[in-house]
Amino acid sequence: MVTFEEFKKLDLRIGKILLVENHPNADKLYVLKIDIGGEVKQSVAGLRPYLTPEQLLNKTVAVVANLEPAVLRGMESQVMILATHSGPDVIPLVPEKTADPGSKIS
Amino acid sequence: MVTFEEFKKLDLRIGKILLVENHPNADKLYVLKIDIGGEVKQSVAGLRPYLTPEQLLNKTVAVVANLEPAVLRGMESQVMILATHSGPDVIPLVPEKTADPGSKIS
Repeated sequence: MVTFEEFKKLDLRIGKILLVENHPNADKLYVLKIDIGGEVKQSVAGLRPYLTPEQLLNKTVAVVANLEPAVLRGMESQVMILATHSGPDVIPLVPEKTADPGSKIS
Repeated sequence: MVTFEEFKKLDLRIGKILLVENHPNADKLYVLKIDIGGEVKQSVAGLRPYLTPEQLLNKTVAVVANLEPAVLRGMESQVMILATHSGPDVIPLVPEKTADPGSKIS
């Protein structure tokens, strides 16, 4: 169980994917630039086996905006895209209709 | 900032909304039954000003499955539906395509 206070520490937001590039040094990773509301952050995500760059570009997705940065094969990930794992698929979480980048999730 | 360990404490999942009823004692609240994967939990959510029961019923949405239960106007909420606030709207977070209830989000 987690308390509501613990949950509220997380900065969950809507981000818009502005750029998708292959990680230079890892077959399964993308390096993405994501607008999280007036700021653009980098995400390194293991989505390459599941989604094409075209399926991700310009999409609005749910992200965790305040995770401690992690370095994945030499590239810094500042933001994490939320996705669900269902059977063989990895499926991003999205707002059900258009929402502005930076919109808070709670 | 939160650590990855703190984030992993949260049990984020896909839930399927099975029932939507008006809270007997609060104009803005619904009481919902949500299948979170083999178990049905109750959620009390302030979505009534924004979405009709028909817009919610049978929908798969992102939920927090392990928040400490809260009592809202006498009804227990065991699960929280994730939604974003964008302008005047409250918009649920959903998987971009069909995902099974209970599918883990990370």
